[in-house]
Amino acid sequence: MDFLSYPQPLADLIAGLSRLPGIGPKTAGRLAFYLLQQPQVAENLAETIIKAQREIKQCSLCCNYTDQDPCPICEGEKRDRSLLCIVEQPRDVVSLEKTREFKGRYHVLHGVISPLEGIGPEQLTISKLLTRLEEVKEVVMAVNPTVEGEATAMYLAKLLKPLGIRVTRIAHGLPVGGDLEYADEITIARALEGRRQI
Amino acid sequence: MDFLSYPQPLADLIAGLSRLPGIGPKTAGRLAFYLLQQPQVAENLAETIIKAQREIKQCSLCCNYTDQDPCPICEGEKRDRSLLCIVEQPRDVVSLEKTREFKGRYHVLHGVISPLEGIGPEQLTISKLLTRLEEVKEVVMAVNPTVEGEATAMYLAKLLKPLGIRVTRIAHGLPVGGDLEYADEITIARALEGRRQI
Repeated sequence: MDFLSYPQPLADLIAGLSRLPGIGPKTAGRLAFYLLQQPQVAENLAETIIKAQREIKQCSLCCNYTDQDPCPICEGEKRDRSLLCIVEQPRDVVSLEKTREFKGRYHVLHGVISPLEGIGPEQLTISKLLTRLEEVKEVVMAVNPTVEGEATAMYLAKLLKPLGIRVTRIAHGLPVGGDLEYADEITIARALEGRRQI
Repeated sequence: MDFLSYPQPLADLIAGLSRLPGIGPKTAGRLAFYLLQQPQVAENLAETIIKAQREIKQCSLCCNYTDQDPCPICEGEKRDRSLLCIVEQPRDVVSLEKTREFKGRYHVLHGVISPLEGIGPEQLTISKLLTRLEEVKEVVMAVNPTVEGEATAMYLAKLLKPLGIRVTRIAHGLPVGGDLEYADEITIARALEGRRQI
Protein backbone atom coordinates (compact mmCIF):
# COMPACT_ATOMS: atom_id res chain seq x y z
CA MET A 1 0.00 0.00 0.00
CA ASP A 2 1.40 3.33 -1.02
CA PHE A 3 0.72 5.83 1.73
CA LEU A 4 2.03 8.67 -0.39
CA SER A 5 -1.06 8.84 -2.52
CA TYR A 6 -4.66 9.73 -1.88
CA PRO A 7 -7.31 7.01 -1.70
CA GLN A 8 -8.40 6.03 -5.21
CA PRO A 9 -11.76 7.86 -5.41
CA LEU A 10 -10.10 11.06 -4.21
CA ALA A 11 -7.19 10.62 -6.65
CA ASP A 12 -9.75 10.09 -9.42
CA LEU A 13 -11.61 13.24 -8.43
CA ILE A 14 -8.38 15.26 -8.50
CA ALA A 15 -7.55 13.77 -11.92
CA GLY A 16 -11.04 14.60 -13.18
CA LEU A 17 -10.75 18.21 -12.04
CA SER A 18 -7.24 18.56 -13.52
CA ARG A 19 -8.67 17.87 -16.96
CA LEU A 20 -10.49 21.21 -16.88
CA PRO A 21 -8.72 24.03 -18.73
CA GLY A 22 -6.58 26.26 -16.53
CA ILE A 23 -6.79 23.92 -13.55
CA GLY A 24 -3.48 22.36 -12.56
CA PRO A 25 -2.92 19.52 -10.10
CA LYS A 26 -2.53 21.85 -7.08
CA THR A 27 -5.78 23.71 -7.74
CA ALA A 28 -7.51 20.41 -8.50
CA GLY A 29 -6.40 19.09 -5.10
CA ARG A 30 -7.71 22.19 -3.37
CA LEU A 31 -11.05 21.93 -5.19
CA ALA A 32 -11.33 18.21 -4.43
CA PHE A 33 -10.87 18.77 -0.70
CA TYR A 34 -13.37 21.61 -0.83
CA LEU A 35 -15.90 19.31 -2.50
CA LEU A 36 -15.39 16.64 0.17
CA GLN A 37 -15.88 19.24 2.90
CA GLN A 38 -18.98 20.71 1.23
CA PRO A 39 -21.13 17.74 0.24
CA GLN A 40 -24.01 19.99 -0.83
CA VAL A 41 -21.86 21.98 -3.25
CA ALA A 42 -20.46 18.71 -4.63
CA GLU A 43 -23.88 17.13 -5.07
CA ASN A 44 -25.25 20.26 -6.70
CA LEU A 45 -22.26 20.45 -9.05
CA ALA A 46 -22.53 16.82 -10.15
CA GLU A 47 -26.26 17.30 -10.74
CA THR A 48 -25.86 20.49 -12.76
CA ILE A 49 -23.17 18.87 -14.93
CA ILE A 50 -25.41 15.88 -15.67
CA LYS A 51 -28.48 18.07 -16.23
CA ALA A 52 -26.66 20.49 -18.54
CA GLN A 53 -25.27 17.56 -20.52
CA ARG A 54 -28.71 16.03 -20.88
CA GLU A 55 -30.74 19.16 -21.56
CA ILE A 56 -28.46 21.52 -23.45
CA LYS A 57 -28.48 20.80 -27.16
CA GLN A 58 -27.49 22.76 -30.22
CA CYS A 59 -30.37 24.66 -31.80
CA SER A 60 -31.22 22.93 -35.09
CA LEU A 61 -31.15 26.30 -36.85
CA CYS A 62 -28.43 28.54 -35.41
CA CYS A 63 -26.41 25.83 -33.55
CA ASN A 64 -26.35 27.94 -30.38
CA TYR A 65 -26.71 26.07 -27.07
CA THR A 66 -30.34 25.87 -26.01
CA ASP A 67 -32.73 23.80 -23.96
CA GLN A 68 -35.57 24.29 -26.46
CA ASP A 69 -35.45 23.75 -30.20
CA PRO A 70 -35.57 26.05 -32.11
CA CYS A 71 -33.97 28.42 -29.61
CA PRO A 72 -35.80 31.55 -28.41
CA ILE A 73 -33.74 33.81 -30.67
CA CYS A 74 -34.46 31.79 -33.83
CA GLU A 75 -38.13 31.69 -32.85
CA GLY A 76 -38.27 35.39 -31.85
CA GLU A 77 -40.94 37.06 -33.97
CA LYS A 78 -39.42 40.51 -33.62
CA ARG A 79 -36.09 39.31 -34.97
CA ASP A 80 -35.04 40.61 -38.36
CA ARG A 81 -34.84 37.54 -40.58
CA SER A 82 -32.90 39.34 -43.27
CA LEU A 83 -29.91 39.86 -40.98
CA LEU A 84 -27.64 37.04 -39.80
CA CYS A 85 -24.65 37.44 -37.52
CA ILE A 86 -21.94 34.76 -37.61
CA VAL A 87 -20.02 34.10 -34.39
CA GLU A 88 -17.47 31.53 -33.29
CA GLN A 89 -18.89 30.41 -29.97
CA PRO A 90 -22.19 30.39 -28.05
CA ARG A 91 -20.73 32.81 -25.50
CA ASP A 92 -20.28 35.37 -28.28
CA VAL A 93 -24.06 35.43 -28.75
CA VAL A 94 -24.50 36.48 -25.12
CA SER A 95 -21.86 39.20 -25.51
CA LEU A 96 -23.65 40.59 -28.57
CA GLU A 97 -27.11 40.29 -27.01
CA LYS A 98 -25.96 42.31 -24.01
CA THR A 99 -25.50 45.35 -26.25
CA ARG A 100 -29.22 45.18 -27.20
CA GLU A 101 -28.10 46.60 -30.55
CA PHE A 102 -28.42 43.63 -32.84
CA LYS A 103 -31.92 42.70 -33.95
CA GLY A 104 -31.15 39.93 -36.42
CA ARG A 105 -30.46 36.27 -35.81
CA TYR A 106 -27.22 34.39 -35.22
CA HIS A 107 -25.30 31.46 -36.54
CA VAL A 108 -22.74 29.79 -34.28
CA LEU A 109 -19.80 28.15 -36.08
CA HIS A 110 -18.44 26.33 -33.00
CA GLY A 111 -14.89 27.17 -33.98
CA VAL A 112 -12.91 28.64 -36.84
CA ILE A 113 -11.08 27.11 -39.76
CA SER A 114 -7.65 26.14 -38.47
CA PRO A 115 -5.62 23.78 -40.68
CA LEU A 116 -2.96 23.45 -37.95
CA GLU A 117 -5.52 21.94 -35.59
CA GLY A 118 -7.12 19.92 -38.36
CA ILE A 119 -10.31 21.98 -38.36
CA GLY A 120 -11.65 22.47 -41.87
CA PRO A 121 -14.99 23.94 -43.02
CA GLU A 122 -16.68 20.54 -42.67
CA GLN A 123 -15.95 20.46 -38.90
CA LEU A 124 -17.89 23.72 -38.46
CA THR A 125 -21.62 24.34 -38.91
CA ILE A 126 -21.17 25.83 -42.39
CA SER A 127 -23.31 23.29 -44.27
CA LYS A 128 -26.18 24.12 -41.89
CA LEU A 129 -25.55 27.84 -42.47
CA LEU A 130 -26.01 27.37 -46.21
CA THR A 131 -29.49 25.86 -45.69
CA ARG A 132 -30.85 28.89 -43.84
CA LEU A 133 -30.01 31.79 -46.15
CA GLU A 134 -33.39 32.03 -47.88
CA GLU A 135 -34.57 35.29 -46.30
CA VAL A 136 -31.08 36.59 -45.48
CA LYS A 137 -29.92 39.83 -47.15
CA GLU A 138 -26.91 40.65 -44.99
CA VAL A 139 -24.46 38.47 -43.11
CA VAL A 140 -22.41 40.20 -40.37
CA MET A 141 -19.12 38.47 -39.60
CA ALA A 142 -18.48 38.78 -35.86
CA VAL A 143 -15.70 36.19 -35.65
CA ASN A 144 -12.67 37.24 -33.65
CA PRO A 145 -9.89 39.21 -35.38
CA THR A 146 -7.36 36.40 -35.17
CA VAL A 147 -5.59 34.91 -38.18
CA GLU A 148 -7.97 31.94 -38.14
CA GLY A 149 -11.00 34.18 -37.62
CA GLU A 150 -10.06 36.37 -40.59
CA ALA A 151 -9.43 33.33 -42.78
CA THR A 152 -12.82 31.93 -41.82
CA ALA A 153 -14.52 35.26 -42.57
CA MET A 154 -12.81 35.37 -46.00
CA TYR A 155 -13.81 31.80 -46.75
CA LEU A 156 -17.45 32.48 -45.84
CA ALA A 157 -17.50 35.76 -47.77
CA LYS A 158 -16.39 33.90 -50.90
CA LEU A 159 -19.18 31.37 -50.36
CA LEU A 160 -21.90 33.93 -49.66
CA LYS A 161 -21.21 36.78 -52.06
CA PRO A 162 -22.09 34.77 -55.21
CA LEU A 163 -25.51 34.17 -53.61
CA GLY A 164 -26.19 37.91 -53.73
CA ILE A 165 -25.82 38.36 -49.96
CA ARG A 166 -24.16 41.45 -48.54
CA VAL A 167 -21.29 40.37 -46.30
CA THR A 168 -20.04 42.80 -43.62
CA ARG A 169 -17.44 42.63 -40.86
CA ILE A 170 -17.80 44.25 -37.43
CA ALA A 171 -15.40 47.18 -36.99
CA HIS A 172 -12.03 46.85 -35.32
CA GLY A 173 -10.40 49.83 -33.68
CA LEU A 174 -9.68 51.36 -30.31
CA PRO A 175 -11.92 50.06 -27.55
CA VAL A 176 -14.13 52.78 -26.02
CA GLY A 177 -12.19 54.21 -23.06
CA GLY A 178 -9.00 52.79 -24.56
CA ASP A 179 -5.90 54.87 -24.93
CA LEU A 180 -3.72 55.22 -28.04
CA GLU A 181 -0.65 54.86 -25.84
CA TYR A 182 -1.57 51.36 -24.76
CA ALA A 183 -3.10 50.05 -27.98
CA ASP A 184 -1.06 47.67 -30.13
CA GLU A 185 0.02 48.62 -33.66
CA ILE A 186 -2.41 46.32 -35.42
CA THR A 187 -5.39 47.72 -33.53
CA ILE A 188 -4.28 51.30 -34.34
CA ALA A 189 -3.73 50.35 -37.99
CA ARG A 190 -7.24 48.88 -38.10
CA ALA A 191 -8.66 51.97 -36.41
CA LEU A 192 -7.03 54.19 -39.04
CA GLU A 193 -8.17 51.95 -41.85
CA GLY A 194 -11.74 52.04 -40.54
CA ARG A 195 -11.87 55.84 -40.02
CA ARG A 196 -15.13 57.58 -40.79
CA GLN A 197 -16.11 61.21 -41.45
CA ILE A 198 -17.53 63.04 -38.42
CA MET B 1 -38.10 35.43 -22.70
CA ASP B 2 -34.81 37.01 -21.74
CA PHE B 3 -32.31 36.48 -24.52
CA LEU B 4 -29.54 38.01 -22.44
CA SER B 5 -29.13 34.97 -20.28
CA TYR B 6 -28.03 31.42 -20.92
CA PRO B 7 -30.59 28.61 -21.03
CA GLN B 8 -31.42 27.53 -17.49
CA PRO B 9 -29.41 24.27 -17.29
CA LEU B 10 -26.33 26.11 -18.56
CA ALA B 11 -26.89 29.02 -16.15
CA ASP B 12 -27.22 26.47 -13.33
CA LEU B 13 -23.97 24.79 -14.37
CA ILE B 14 -22.16 28.14 -14.37
CA ALA B 15 -23.63 28.92 -10.94
CA GLY B 16 -22.59 25.51 -9.64
CA LEU B 17 -19.03 26.00 -10.85
CA SER B 18 -18.85 29.55 -9.42
CA ARG B 19 -19.40 28.14 -5.95
CA LEU B 20 -15.96 26.53 -6.06
CA PRO B 21 -13.24 28.48 -4.28
CA GLY B 22 -11.18 30.73 -6.53
CA ILE B 23 -13.54 30.34 -9.50
CA GLY B 24 -15.32 33.53 -10.50
CA PRO B 25 -18.22 33.87 -12.93
CA LYS B 26 -15.96 34.36 -15.99
CA THR B 27 -13.91 31.25 -15.30
CA ALA B 28 -17.08 29.33 -14.47
CA GLY B 29 -18.51 30.29 -17.86
CA ARG B 30 -15.36 29.16 -19.61
CA LEU B 31 -15.38 25.84 -17.74
CA ALA B 32 -19.10 25.31 -18.44
CA PHE B 33 -18.62 25.76 -22.20
CA TYR B 34 -15.65 23.45 -22.07
CA LEU B 35 -17.75 20.79 -20.33
CA LEU B 36 -20.48 21.10 -22.97
CA GLN B 37 -17.89 20.73 -25.72
CA GLN B 38 -16.23 17.76 -24.04
CA PRO B 39 -19.04 15.43 -22.98
CA GLN B 40 -16.59 12.72 -21.92
CA VAL B 41 -14.71 15.02 -19.56
CA ALA B 42 -18.03 16.23 -18.14
CA GLU B 43 -19.40 12.74 -17.62
CA ASN B 44 -16.18 11.57 -16.02
CA LEU B 45 -16.12 14.61 -13.72
CA ALA B 46 -19.71 14.14 -12.56
CA GLU B 47 -19.00 10.45 -11.92
CA THR B 48 -15.81 11.07 -9.95
CA ILE B 49 -17.55 13.70 -7.81
CA ILE B 50 -20.39 11.30 -6.98
CA LYS B 51 -18.02 8.39 -6.42
CA ALA B 52 -15.69 10.38 -4.16
CA GLN B 53 -18.68 11.61 -2.17
CA ARG B 54 -19.99 8.10 -1.71
CA GLU B 55 -16.73 6.28 -1.04
CA ILE B 56 -14.50 8.73 0.78
CA LYS B 57 -15.16 8.74 4.52
CA GLN B 58 -13.22 9.88 7.53
CA CYS B 59 -11.13 7.12 9.11
CA SER B 60 -12.78 6.25 12.42
CA LEU B 61 -9.41 6.51 14.15
CA CYS B 62 -7.35 9.34 12.63
CA CYS B 63 -10.20 11.19 10.80
CA ASN B 64 -8.12 11.31 7.59
CA TYR B 65 -10.01 10.81 4.33
CA THR B 66 -10.00 7.17 3.32
CA ASP B 67 -11.95 4.61 1.32
CA GLN B 68 -11.26 1.84 3.84
CA ASP B 69 -11.77 1.99 7.58
CA PRO B 70 -9.45 2.05 9.47
CA CYS B 71 -7.20 3.73 6.93
CA PRO B 72 -3.96 2.07 5.71
CA ILE B 73 -1.82 4.29 7.92
CA CYS B 74 -3.76 3.51 11.12
CA GLU B 75 -3.65 -0.19 10.20
CA GLY B 76 0.01 -0.12 9.18
CA GLU B 77 1.87 -2.66 11.28
CA LYS B 78 5.22 -0.96 10.87
CA ARG B 79 3.86 2.32 12.21
CA ASP B 80 5.14 3.48 15.59
CA ARG B 81 2.06 3.55 17.79
CA SER B 82 3.79 5.62 20.47
CA LEU B 83 4.11 8.59 18.12
CA LEU B 84 1.14 10.67 16.97
CA CYS B 85 1.33 13.65 14.62
CA ILE B 86 -1.49 16.20 14.71
CA VAL B 87 -2.30 18.05 11.48
CA GLU B 88 -5.02 20.42 10.37
CA GLN B 89 -6.11 18.89 7.06
CA PRO B 90 -5.93 15.57 5.19
CA ARG B 91 -3.63 17.14 2.60
CA ASP B 92 -1.07 17.78 5.36
CA VAL B 93 -0.79 14.02 5.87
CA VAL B 94 0.24 13.59 2.24
CA SER B 95 2.81 16.40 2.58
CA LEU B 96 4.33 14.73 5.63
CA GLU B 97 4.21 11.23 4.13
CA LYS B 98 6.13 12.46 1.09
CA THR B 99 9.14 13.13 3.31
CA ARG B 100 9.21 9.42 4.31
CA GLU B 101 10.61 10.66 7.62
CA PHE B 102 7.68 10.20 9.95
CA LYS B 103 6.99 6.65 11.10
CA GLY B 104 4.20 7.31 13.60
CA ARG B 105 0.51 7.77 13.01
CA TYR B 106 -1.58 10.87 12.39
CA HIS B 107 -4.61 12.65 13.71
CA VAL B 108 -6.45 15.08 11.45
CA LEU B 109 -8.24 17.93 13.24
CA HIS B 110 -10.15 19.14 10.16
CA GLY B 111 -9.51 22.75 11.07
CA VAL B 112 -8.12 24.87 13.90
CA ILE B 113 -9.73 26.65 16.81
CA SER B 114 -10.94 29.99 15.47
CA PRO B 115 -13.36 31.91 17.69
CA LEU B 116 -13.90 34.51 14.93
CA GLU B 117 -15.29 31.83 12.63
CA GLY B 118 -17.18 30.16 15.44
CA ILE B 119 -14.93 27.09 15.46
CA GLY B 120 -14.30 25.82 19.00
CA PRO B 121 -12.62 22.60 20.16
CA GLU B 122 -15.94 20.71 19.87
CA GLN B 123 -16.08 21.38 16.11
CA LEU B 124 -12.73 19.63 15.65
CA THR B 125 -11.88 15.96 16.13
CA ILE B 126 -10.38 16.54 19.58
CA SER B 127 -12.75 14.27 21.51
CA LYS B 128 -11.80 11.42 19.16
CA LEU B 129 -8.12 12.27 19.68
CA LEU B 130 -8.51 11.84 23.44
CA THR B 131 -9.82 8.28 22.97
CA ARG B 132 -6.74 7.05 21.10
CA LEU B 133 -3.87 8.10 23.37
CA GLU B 134 -3.42 4.78 25.15
CA GLU B 135 -0.09 3.75 23.57
CA VAL B 136 0.98 7.30 22.68
CA LYS B 137 4.15 8.65 24.29
CA GLU B 138 4.75 11.69 22.09
CA VAL B 139 2.41 13.98 20.20
CA VAL B 140 4.00 16.09 17.42
CA MET B 141 2.06 19.27 16.61
CA ALA B 142 2.29 19.86 12.87
CA VAL B 143 -0.45 22.49 12.68
CA ASN B 144 0.41 25.57 10.60
CA PRO B 145 2.25 28.46 12.29
CA THR B 146 -0.73 30.83 12.09
CA VAL B 147 -2.29 32.56 15.10
CA GLU B 148 -5.12 30.01 15.11
CA GLY B 149 -2.72 27.11 14.59
CA GLU B 150 -0.55 28.21 17.52
CA ALA B 151 -3.60 28.69 19.75
CA THR B 152 -4.80 25.20 18.85
CA ALA B 153 -1.37 23.72 19.57
CA MET B 154 -1.32 25.49 22.97
CA TYR B 155 -4.83 24.27 23.79
CA LEU B 156 -3.95 20.68 22.91
CA ALA B 157 -0.65 20.85 24.79
CA LYS B 158 -2.54 21.88 27.93
CA LEU B 159 -4.89 18.93 27.47
CA LEU B 160 -2.20 16.36 26.75
CA LYS B 161 0.65 17.25 29.13
CA PRO B 162 -1.26 16.28 32.30
CA LEU B 163 -1.69 12.82 30.75
CA GLY B 164 2.08 12.38 30.84
CA ILE B 165 2.46 12.71 27.09
CA ARG B 166 5.45 14.51 25.59
CA VAL B 167 4.17 17.29 23.34
CA THR B 168 6.49 18.64 20.62
CA ARG B 169 6.17 21.18 17.83
CA ILE B 170 7.75 20.88 14.37
CA ALA B 171 10.54 23.43 13.89
CA HIS B 172 10.01 26.77 12.20
CA GLY B 173 12.85 28.55 10.54
CA LEU B 174 14.34 29.32 7.16
CA PRO B 175 13.14 26.98 4.42
CA VAL B 176 15.96 24.95 2.88
CA GLY B 177 17.24 26.92 -0.10
CA GLY B 178 15.67 30.06 1.40
CA ASP B 179 17.58 33.30 1.70
CA LEU B 180 17.85 35.50 4.80
CA GLU B 181 17.27 38.54 2.61
CA TYR B 182 13.82 37.40 1.56
CA ALA B 183 12.63 35.82 4.81
CA ASP B 184 10.13 37.74 6.94
CA GLU B 185 11.06 38.91 10.47
CA ILE B 186 8.94 36.36 12.28
CA THR B 187 10.47 33.45 10.39
CA ILE B 188 13.97 34.77 11.14
CA ALA B 189 13.05 35.29 14.79
CA ARG B 190 11.80 31.70 14.97
CA ALA B 191 14.92 30.44 13.22
CA LEU B 192 17.11 32.21 15.83
CA GLU B 193 14.98 30.97 18.68
CA GLY B 194 15.24 27.39 17.42
CA ARG B 195 19.01 27.47 16.83
CA ARG B 196 20.98 24.33 17.62
CA GLN B 197 24.63 23.56 18.21
CA ILE B 198 26.52 22.23 15.20
